[in-house]
Amino acid sequence: MDKRFWSSRIQTLVPYTPGEQPKDRVFIKLNTNENPYPPSPKVLEAIREATDARLRLYPDPEALELRKALAEFYGVGPEQVFCGNGSDEVLGLCFYAFFSPGKKVVFPDITYSFYPVYTELFGLDYEEIPLNGDFTLPVERFLGGNGGAVVCNPNAPTGKTLPLSDIRRILEANPDVVVLVDEAYADFGAQSAVPLLREYRNLVVVGTMSKSRSLAGLRVGYALGSPDLIAGVNCVKNSFNSYPLDRIALAAGEAAVRDTAYFEQTRRKIMSTRQRTAERLRELGFLVHDSNANFIFITHPARSGRELQQGLRDRGVLVRRFDRPRIADYLRVSIGTDEEMDAMCAACAEILKE
Amino acid sequence: MDKRFWSSRIQTLVPYTPGEQPKDRVFIKLNTNENPYPPSPKVLEAIREATDARLRLYPDPEALELRKALAEFYGVGPEQVFCGNGSDEVLGLCFYAFFSPGKKVVFPDITYSFYPVYTELFGLDYEEIPLNGDFTLPVERFLGGNGGAVVCNPNAPTGKTLPLSDIRRILEANPDVVVLVDEAYADFGAQSAVPLLREYRNLVVVGTMSKSRSLAGLRVGYALGSPDLIAGVNCVKNSFNSYPLDRIALAAGEAAVRDTAYFEQTRRKIMSTRQRTAERLRELGFLVHDSNANFIFITHPARSGRELQQGLRDRGVLVRRFDRPRIADYLRVSIGTDEEMDAMCAACAEILKE
Repeated sequence: MDKRFWSSRIQTLVPYTPGEQPKDRVFIKLNTNENPYPPSPKVLEAIREATDARLRLYPDPEALELRKALAEFYGVGPEQVFCGNGSDEVLGLCFYAFFSPGKKVVFPDITYSFYPVYTELFGLDYEEIPLNGDFTLPVERFLGGNGGAVVCNPNAPTGKTLPLSDIRRILEANPDVVVLVDEAYADFGAQSAVPLLREYRNLVVVGTMSKSRSLAGLRVGYALGSPDLIAGVNCVKNSFNSYPLDRIALAAGEAAVRDTAYFEQTRRKIMSTRQRTAERLRELGFLVHDSNANFIFITHPARSGRELQQGLRDRGVLVRRFDRPRIADYLRVSIGTDEEMDAMCAACAEILKE
Repeated sequence: MDKRFWSSRIQTLVPYTPGEQPKDRVFIKLNTNENPYPPSPKVLEAIREATDARLRLYPDPEALELRKALAEFYGVGPEQVFCGNGSDEVLGLCFYAFFSPGKKVVFPDITYSFYPVYTELFGLDYEEIPLNGDFTLPVERFLGGNGGAVVCNPNAPTGKTLPLSDIRRILEANPDVVVLVDEAYADFGAQSAVPLLREYRNLVVVGTMSKSRSLAGLRVGYALGSPDLIAGVNCVKNSFNSYPLDRIALAAGEAAVRDTAYFEQTRRKIMSTRQRTAERLRELGFLVHDSNANFIFITHPARSGRELQQGLRDRGVLVRRFDRPRIADYLRVSIGTDEEMDAMCAACAEILKE
């Protein structure tokens, strides 16, 4: 690669690697935390209704109707909601809006691996705080002396949840910097920090429709915070891309938020499949961490992570593994349908018999 | 606004202001250079075909099929094509990928007003080179000694076109930095710089489906360049947002590029309406600059720009005006249907009679 024309800023940048999206073979796809259930029928209907000549016109740059729907759902004001092109973009815009060069941002060493990429991209200082041996968060290391803190709750890829009392401690110990809570997976059993917005003006909560709303294919993410914080994200967004959400995504996102019955039904189904899968895998001798996400984080004393991942792939099951210290022998397995998880467990049993 | 929690980087940032998207009243909307014709029927069909359970899955992060379609259309390789969320995002990613802090980027003083916003957002040095009195580009001011150059061709909001011979001069005089040619409007009569990609490795051409493909509502933009330059944009994109294009936009964009007959028909219609409108406005005493875009840039000796814009608005016609030195008395008028332009001309005639 000839980087002669690249900016000095990106000469050593290493991008985030998303999970594989296979094109040529049908897998049981448990590698990117997608929802096994289709989007709500009302979402598909909303898309059909938006598919007409109006696509020649720009979308609403302020995403007002979608923001209103989210505001109602979460019990906040529309001016406390920002919408963007998936929570990855929203996180990136938040990192740029709230963290300043020269002031160290803190997040765990084992967490969503996009966080250090944002800080590298934007030239921000950061420190990765090692999780405890059981993958719980050493809360005391997040209590001040930093330029901002990022916590994924439930954490990825471990699935571990931080109680709201600990988030409160972190917020109180960081009154002058932003604490960003990434709740991409919170709908699968964690307590949301959104109610804390009433008390803390330094809190930003980020969410996505890719997981619990079955809309990974449409790229809708959001942030909730005080009006002053949301204005900061808007300032960056409007200096980069006025219209990150297209007309279809706006209509679909709104319909998804408003169909609470479908949302409840599918997320509960996934939580129940998660429980069932964890039990079966424990019977097979796996260590399965308690998870409040739509994935489980597992390891087996008798097989390496690499062997397990390859064995599953050979049997048509894709799972995610992070080849990094401390977790290289773990697999992150998304929760699919009961049938998919039965097939995954059966494949594991086969591998262990070899 | 309390900016206490905002990054030091954005404390004085002034975002770009997009043209008004009216919500409560029906206007003849000639203010944001949208296409008056609907997207191709094949685009709507492609969206309907993509509207199903697959929306639960992430889109192709590499946009391969769309890139292949664009590569075929432009006669380049797929590895020379980058796709993003509208050309605004693509431009932003290019600014970040190719321009370095401390090295002055040059662009005209009168051009797409998002360029200085990107440079402010990213902390880049820049110089706005004054256009000549007739709004032509002082080419000699772009011949080296800078950290990059950006030229919108045809230029916005003037509609003026730079001949390829001048773009060639600029490319040759800037062998070590990137020259970015923004061709958002080139399909309406300008010669594209894409054929120059064979000769110049420092050239990036940016395009959009918002204008000539009638897809402003779906946010599809692209950049063409050498594989090494495209890898640079990908490096930034993949460090910010893996999936800027959703499944619907990918399918729609591909269908739009492949329907060349519809593209030819609608862009030729707009060029013919532009000609007809310019003639009518000249009869009314307007100065109408020759335009190769889907808008015209006009001024009248007897009325201020503000009066004209307000008079048109009172008559249900929205046009864009930039309240900036040298062009405050000009209106940028998007080309609509013949009927819309007749109504606009009739409204102008009324205003001039007052």
